[in-house]
Amino acid sequence: MATTPYVDATTRRVTGENGIEYAFRDLGTSEVPLVLLQHFRGNLDNWDPALIDALAAQRRVIAFDNVGVGATSGTTPNTVEAMAHGAIAFMEALELERIELLGFSIGSFVAQEIALIRPDLLRRVVLASSAPQGAAGMHGWAPAVIGAVGRPETSPEGYLSVFFAPTDTSREAGGQAAGRIFGGRTTDRDQPTTWQTRQAQYDAVCAWGIPNHSLLERVAAIELPVFVANGDSDPMILSRYSYLLAGLLPDARLKIYPDSAHGFLFQHHAEFAADVHAFVDQSD
Amino acid sequence: MATTPYVDATTRRVTGENGIEYAFRDLGTSEVPLVLLQHFRGNLDNWDPALIDALAAQRRVIAFDNVGVGATSGTTPNTVEAMAHGAIAFMEALELERIELLGFSIGSFVAQEIALIRPDLLRRVVLASSAPQGAAGMHGWAPAVIGAVGRPETSPEGYLSVFFAPTDTSREAGGQAAGRIFGGRTTDRDQPTTWQTRQAQYDAVCAWGIPNHSLLERVAAIELPVFVANGDSDPMILSRYSYLLAGLLPDARLKIYPDSAHGFLFQHHAEFAADVHAFVDQSD
Repeated sequence: MATTPYVDATTRRVTGENGIEYAFRDLGTSEVPLVLLQHFRGNLDNWDPALIDALAAQRRVIAFDNVGVGATSGTTPNTVEAMAHGAIAFMEALELERIELLGFSIGSFVAQEIALIRPDLLRRVVLASSAPQGAAGMHGWAPAVIGAVGRPETSPEGYLSVFFAPTDTSREAGGQAAGRIFGGRTTDRDQPTTWQTRQAQYDAVCAWGIPNHSLLERVAAIELPVFVANGDSDPMILSRYSYLLAGLLPDARLKIYPDSAHGFLFQHHAEFAADVHAFVDQSD
Repeated sequence: MATTPYVDATTRRVTGENGIEYAFRDLGTSEVPLVLLQHFRGNLDNWDPALIDALAAQRRVIAFDNVGVGATSGTTPNTVEAMAHGAIAFMEALELERIELLGFSIGSFVAQEIALIRPDLLRRVVLASSAPQGAAGMHGWAPAVIGAVGRPETSPEGYLSVFFAPTDTSREAGGQAAGRIFGGRTTDRDQPTTWQTRQAQYDAVCAWGIPNHSLLERVAAIELPVFVANGDSDPMILSRYSYLLAGLLPDARLKIYPDSAHGFLFQHHAEFAADVHAFVDQSD
């Protein structure tokens, strides 16, 4: 049975014990679903449909807006820990007892926090464009990065400059991904994320990046298998933080994708989806 | 002018201010020499001649026995810090004011220590099969590893099991490297390392591996460009410690060589030498 393409997937609603009405899309089939945690200022439509379709071809995939984001009700919290609790409440509302978790960018920070707060909810974890809390040198992001994606009005140029590398091949891939993301779905699009979401998420990102060597030890408690992945030219979260995570985590494998930046998983969607499937399909 | 092959290079002697007579071999030509720091229980003959010749084809390369090792006089000290001071005394005896430094295994620990003690001696640093002091999980090495290379009498089987991966291709490369190392030089071979050297070096390795998260922060003070390299299947110092080092160092690049173990730099001697040349030839 063919899976519904992501651009045609219905946006559904579920209400958590916290009273929040969560918007989500649920496609594909597998015993253990893969739940996705989105990037800074992103909503359901900001996942590249080519990546979601490649993932949903082999497993159940659930994308959702966390508290206060896009079409989900409430106010976006300003700490990664509160975002993790908001995500856990969503899993509980869907009665998910065990999941695979893929966190991207700020979503990867939330994924780490969920792995620390509620490890038995998780089977395996994918951290894309990630960094451990407290790593030196990442506080607040580089001025050019937050200048490109942090303004009240976002622009295609700003998006491309952070999510894709400054090469012809990566920018060409970026144009194609942007076409799929911004042009693929024509009806029932998600609500845009607000300035409140931007401010709260940036507060959380800045707090995560306050340098604190002792906090690097937190991820040593994540005993789950973790796949750490990044682009080799990510200006938003440098690949050195993926090295650091993979070195601190007890059971991590690392892959750095060539000629790509923050959006490496969109640019290399087929390769990345195959790598995620191979990682998740490993037996425990 | 053709460089003397390593198997024919004369073993020379120089006496340091510390009264130690150091044995060394010096070949090739360049303004800034590349000084090598050897692995656990290794002497001058334990460098793969194919690697040294590939390095010396493009620059001056100096291999030496540190204090108490092989033909060098004295007693091997039992801390990495004292080994670093012994190496610095050798550089001073040769009146080297600025060097490139390549440390391998325990030699890479000594290289880190030199970078912390005497940073202005160094231009760039290569850390092969390395780990930062205090990293969790490496204390004393795995029983199979120290069992293979830590006995009073060493064996080709033990050497191959640690330095090469358990694949046909890696073991084949291992046989070739062992042939070059143990059979290439027929006269003026170095003195074998002693049990005192083994014990002192293992004490130093065990102390380096006492888990201490706070000590991981030490390498943040190494501001020099560093090339971190390892085999993907090294059982002696897992590649995760190379990730960790590359994530903690402020200015590191990382390469993990496929289908190889502790001796990846012998197995992949041409590729590794080319990578070292490319790294060292970068302008500051």
